[in-house]
Amino acid sequence: MRWRSVGEVNCSVARTLAVIGERWTMLILREAFMGRRRFDDFQRNIGIARNILATRLRALVKDGILERFRADDEHARVEYRLTKKGMDLYPVMVAMLKWGDAWLWPAGEKGPPLQLVHRGCGAKAMPALVCPNCGDPVGARDMLAVARHAARPARRSERLARGKAAR
Amino acid sequence: MRWRSVGEVNCSVARTLAVIGERWTMLILREAFMGRRRFDDFQRNIGIARNILATRLRALVKDGILERFRADDEHARVEYRLTKKGMDLYPVMVAMLKWGDAWLWPAGEKGPPLQLVHRGCGAKAMPALVCPNCGDPVGARDMLAVARHAARPARRSERLARGKAAR
Repeated sequence: MRWRSVGEVNCSVARTLAVIGERWTMLILREAFMGRRRFDDFQRNIGIARNILATRLRALVKDGILERFRADDEHARVEYRLTKKGMDLYPVMVAMLKWGDAWLWPAGEKGPPLQLVHRGCGAKAMPALVCPNCGDPVGARDMLAVARHAARPARRSERLARGKAAR
Repeated sequence: MRWRSVGEVNCSVARTLAVIGERWTMLILREAFMGRRRFDDFQRNIGIARNILATRLRALVKDGILERFRADDEHARVEYRLTKKGMDLYPVMVAMLKWGDAWLWPAGEKGPPLQLVHRGCGAKAMPALVCPNCGDPVGARDMLAVARHAARPARRSERLARGKAAR
């Protein structure tokens, strides 16, 4: 399989990677989640080449993650903001942030620069992953993945997920 | 900035991407979370070229995400399993799965192939992101990112995060 086919696979992780898995894309989204909206701000804060940024932004608009609009001021500049679909990527962003905070700061360094705060209760804390039914925190060992559909003859693009679901 | 420098930036998201942001890497981890351990299983289930798989596995071992070991049977094959650091990437995986399930299955399709089940309480449900203090579900609009450290003269590699934290 070539990478460009990864979005056609019968697996939500693979399809997600087809949308956000290119280099730089998650850093553009990081900026968007921080409230950045302008091409030049993205470019400066990420340190990305302008042609790559333009390509990534086009793809994110095409995929419905960002939307282009004209700023409501005298300059009427083009800006980009997260759609609902884009906002829904926040858990991916937070999960990466949390893991990086936990694992990628050597002892000699000052530590991660950002602290998340819950607006609702004021707690300085990283969001946690829990079971929505019982509320217990969950990790890899707490969850089981089972097949959702009964077995049936599969299309070529589905062999992958079928092999997985059959375990 | 070139992509190979992304792991040196003063930002946990960028550093995380330097470890898991290459094409195919998250699909290898998907297989590892599904319990796959062998090179040939990874290769077949992902449909990845063998040389690329070998390169990615080496990097994941070097980064402490997977560990190589010999299977405890008569064949004593080389296998790969997730370390604690690797297991801790589960929230990233689940967040991608959940977003893909929600947004990337057109109405005409049968729907996502996998259902997660919480072993603890038996609920068929995707884990949710909550504030660990008050327990409320949180999304992008519920969390605020603030600077953790006081301002000081920054190294070049830190401008990025500093600009971000200063907002």
